[in-house]
Amino acid sequence: MDLKIKCDEILGMESRYRIHFINSLSGFKSANLVGTVDKQGRENLSIISSCFHLGADPALMGFIVRPHSAPRHTLENILETESFSINHVNRDIIKNAHQTSARYDKEESEFLHCKLTPTYEENFQAPFVKESKVKMGLKKEEVIKLKNNTELVIGKIELVILPEYCLKEDGFIDIEKSETICVSGLDSYHGTQKVCRLSYAKKDKALEEFKN
Amino acid sequence: MDLKIKCDEILGMESRYRIHFINSLSGFKSANLVGTVDKQGRENLSIISSCFHLGADPALMGFIVRPHSAPRHTLENILETESFSINHVNRDIIKNAHQTSARYDKEESEFLHCKLTPTYEENFQAPFVKESKVKMGLKKEEVIKLKNNTELVIGKIELVILPEYCLKEDGFIDIEKSETICVSGLDSYHGTQKVCRLSYAKKDKALEEFKN
Repeated sequence: MDLKIKCDEILGMESRYRIHFINSLSGFKSANLVGTVDKQGRENLSIISSCFHLGADPALMGFIVRPHSAPRHTLENILETESFSINHVNRDIIKNAHQTSARYDKEESEFLHCKLTPTYEENFQAPFVKESKVKMGLKKEEVIKLKNNTELVIGKIELVILPEYCLKEDGFIDIEKSETICVSGLDSYHGTQKVCRLSYAKKDKALEEFKN
Repeated sequence: MDLKIKCDEILGMESRYRIHFINSLSGFKSANLVGTVDKQGRENLSIISSCFHLGADPALMGFIVRPHSAPRHTLENILETESFSINHVNRDIIKNAHQTSARYDKEESEFLHCKLTPTYEENFQAPFVKESKVKMGLKKEEVIKLKNNTELVIGKIELVILPEYCLKEDGFIDIEKSETICVSGLDSYHGTQKVCRLSYAKKDKALEEFKN
């Protein structure tokens, strides 16, 4: 049977219950670790599930920072250095990645406390996560404050690092091969299994299905 | 072996190749159908992979519309009526959902052409997708133009419809039970398999793992 839950019932939910409920609604989400460093060299790492594609020319990526959430230090560092990395969470580092959402002080590196390894690339300031297989280096493009005090961070992709075996001949990256996982709600982690790739949709033309 | 691909190499990619490449980078994405109607009653339906959670109090959701993309009619209708629905794509309707990305005229309903059924709820203007199991009705809150001419649509959740068996006692919605799928790149569809749920992360406290 279907439940129909109205606006006032959502407002009446107990706060933690509502957070689980609303966070589950958008569907499966990407799981990424954002790596930053401040001017004093203090590293920060934070899991985000709101990373999205914003454009391919120029190559832009965005993510959301909510008020008082763990990624606040991340945002401060991005404003300070304009540099950040986005690193896919894979099956082997789910717990490490989830642990970065705990409230650590700015002096404490999540890399250290969550047992992940910072690595650096030439001419790029922010640290990457060694254990992550698909990773990007970005430069801050814009930070936009939205109505409910969340902030939208937009970055331009400067560098992409990925295993050669993930890159297909049409430019598609097979992120199942990198064991990239996805998340639902606040805390549920999922592996994936490809159903199919579909051809470019055109009016009055049947879709073709590609199994690999 | 790892590939390291720099900004100028990305810019040098053939356009279609670059679109596949950049669209794969954010990780797995939600797959949703946005349902709208204009003042003349012409229905529109469009697949989006950029839907994200923006806040639980009030309950807000956002998604991105890129310039000249299929969801332009969606945006026009939202500006006209302030009403839209978000409907999870599930395993049974992957092809129907993908086909909505073809360029139909405003007079042509994607519901009809893609063989999906519009349904309406009392006191809510936009159509829902009958075949979708988890669906939301939203009211336009804000539309923000971003630098690269993409637009961020923010809506307030007014109504949620979901199968009773998906709702867990802590408010979490088990979207694997609704067979909600996810997408990577432009055209790759994936089922999921839960690895675990993890406890709320705290400093100096080991995470607990919940198998269901």
